[in-house]
Amino acid sequence: MLSFIRSDLSDLKAYTPHPETAMEGVSATPIRRDRLDTNESPYDLPAELKQKLGWTYEQLIETNRYPDGTHQGLREAIAEYVNESAGPNAGAIAPSQLSVGNGSDELIRSILIATCLNGQGSILVADPTFSMYAILAQTLGIEAIAVGRHEENFAIDVDAAQQALETQKNPPIRVIFVVHPNSPTANALTPAEIDWLRAIPDNILVVVDEAYFEFSQTTLVGELNRHPNWAILRTFSKAFRLAAMRVGYAIAHPDLIAALEKIRLPYNLPSFSQAAAELAMQQRSHLLASIPETLAERDRLYQALSNLSGLTVWPSSANFIYLRGDRQTPPDLARLAAELKTRGTLVRYTCNGLRVTVGTPSENQRTLENFQRLLGASS
Amino acid sequence: MLSFIRSDLSDLKAYTPHPETAMEGVSATPIRRDRLDTNESPYDLPAELKQKLGWTYEQLIETNRYPDGTHQGLREAIAEYVNESAGPNAGAIAPSQLSVGNGSDELIRSILIATCLNGQGSILVADPTFSMYAILAQTLGIEAIAVGRHEENFAIDVDAAQQALETQKNPPIRVIFVVHPNSPTANALTPAEIDWLRAIPDNILVVVDEAYFEFSQTTLVGELNRHPNWAILRTFSKAFRLAAMRVGYAIAHPDLIAALEKIRLPYNLPSFSQAAAELAMQQRSHLLASIPETLAERDRLYQALSNLSGLTVWPSSANFIYLRGDRQTPPDLARLAAELKTRGTLVRYTCNGLRVTVGTPSENQRTLENFQRLLGASS
Repeated sequence: MLSFIRSDLSDLKAYTPHPETAMEGVSATPIRRDRLDTNESPYDLPAELKQKLGWTYEQLIETNRYPDGTHQGLREAIAEYVNESAGPNAGAIAPSQLSVGNGSDELIRSILIATCLNGQGSILVADPTFSMYAILAQTLGIEAIAVGRHEENFAIDVDAAQQALETQKNPPIRVIFVVHPNSPTANALTPAEIDWLRAIPDNILVVVDEAYFEFSQTTLVGELNRHPNWAILRTFSKAFRLAAMRVGYAIAHPDLIAALEKIRLPYNLPSFSQAAAELAMQQRSHLLASIPETLAERDRLYQALSNLSGLTVWPSSANFIYLRGDRQTPPDLARLAAELKTRGTLVRYTCNGLRVTVGTPSENQRTLENFQRLLGASS
Repeated sequence: MLSFIRSDLSDLKAYTPHPETAMEGVSATPIRRDRLDTNESPYDLPAELKQKLGWTYEQLIETNRYPDGTHQGLREAIAEYVNESAGPNAGAIAPSQLSVGNGSDELIRSILIATCLNGQGSILVADPTFSMYAILAQTLGIEAIAVGRHEENFAIDVDAAQQALETQKNPPIRVIFVVHPNSPTANALTPAEIDWLRAIPDNILVVVDEAYFEFSQTTLVGELNRHPNWAILRTFSKAFRLAAMRVGYAIAHPDLIAALEKIRLPYNLPSFSQAAAELAMQQRSHLLASIPETLAERDRLYQALSNLSGLTVWPSSANFIYLRGDRQTPPDLARLAAELKTRGTLVRYTCNGLRVTVGTPSENQRTLENFQRLLGASS
């Protein structure tokens, strides 16, 4: 190891993106694989919108010029959508309460930098959950304290969390990260969990990651103006079908947003990504029209998987389903994931369970048939 | 200030991107302004390449899928270009010696995180220089020690730098950032400066930012394999005309690259940006064919500005020119920049001087005429 590199980086495990599909790029050989391992939308933008975006690039974007570093137009469009999605009784969110990132990942990193760096704080997560909070914390030398969840519904073990808040001192916990609904377990926050978050003292930041909001249709945006120590994260990578473009946003108190804006790279969003996100906002009713199909398919998949022997399947508020082996005769799920892969179905083996993204109806049908065949054959 | 935000962030000054043009975005009102304030190429990609890239998006990129997080294809293409540009006597650079970032900015931040975080190091810069090193350091709570430059040629005050290396202890300097050629002063590293860098002990990282390499055609890549404590940064934002797409790269020892790869956001580069950079590599001889015109225009601009009274103009190894008022009758350069702006010429007022990007021949002609008119009128 070169001596100028921080010694604590050597035991850092990097996030493994897309283990099955990372090498494909745009020049993929056309093998049919149902990519149900990363919770993307199964649908690209409609052809006419891709054409429109291609036209926008060719006619309006100057490739040689730096992007708009203020994101002003995009932030106004997002504010309109956020307010519309929060319902009539929510307080209005202003563009000054929004910061746009190179995916939510950049915003998570900026939040960590703004709050915990240099020994000033640690973070709290409840496992299993999205792994990037702890990974990004570790890259910054910030400790991530993990508490558990109740296996019957994957609600956070609030007693353990509360105890961690009270006992962790050097440094104290400054940020709590929750996902609503959680990944990989697909459960939305319960009323009891939300009550606990409401009672968190205001010297601790509560980050509610609503990456899957468009599938759950439950949001805490309406409470944001009552809780200056809450921040909500959203993304264009899931329901809005823009994973390739890397756009996420934070909604929070203007003072926290001002800190995130100071920290972010000044030109963090390529012009094409900004144009894509603006188009997605303009066309939101068109793009979100596929959601009811996804929810119906999710429920069909849930029922059919629940009928298989050897599995415990949890209800889902998102666009994916989480399952584990049951206690009596659990199948080897790591092996099952590998066998599904040889049959062309990519799912995510994580935390002793499988996370299965809801795809198109025909993808889901193949997924079910593969599960039925493999579990029928091995039981 | 919210109490969970680091108190040392409150006096942080954010980088002010594109002060004159930031609000334009893609929906700019078509006022003619010669944007010579950000060292971009004056030329967009040729129309046929924009069409090709638009076609690539529409036909090959799946908007709903995460980008290739490995950048494998792009790194191979960059390695080929780097080796070609380093000349026949340079050791070969492998793709494992490359990390690709969301602009060089992301790589600068990753380097700071890898080396100096949490009180483990400070950085050294020689002012005036690119401001992002110190700004990004400050966002991370890392101290930036600044030494000066000799005004006759803007070479680093090596004696002061050496003294800073020896006396700065808590924490010691772990990284030296130099730009080759420097911005805003346009001078390439001298043989004496390079000798000094060669003698830097190997527990200190030397970062040589070659953002303007394609204009200077002098590179230190050939020395990299002899100096495991050196890293070179390059960008697609200048000569390759891709500022809108945000792509930069680092060339360094595989162990440093491995650390940067652990730290970077797993999906840091949108698919469209990767496709644009791959296209730029394929078409590099086509795109770089405009460089001789830029260099000839730069020399013409240098001569003509040097003939104006009241100015000291420095020779340039890059695609911009730096000037200050002379000692006898210096004009008010802040006011001159404002007056140039009202005449449609945007230049950068920085460090008591003006930095003027070389544009198209007609842009440069208007720049010269505006300078002549304003200095003639005010002198």
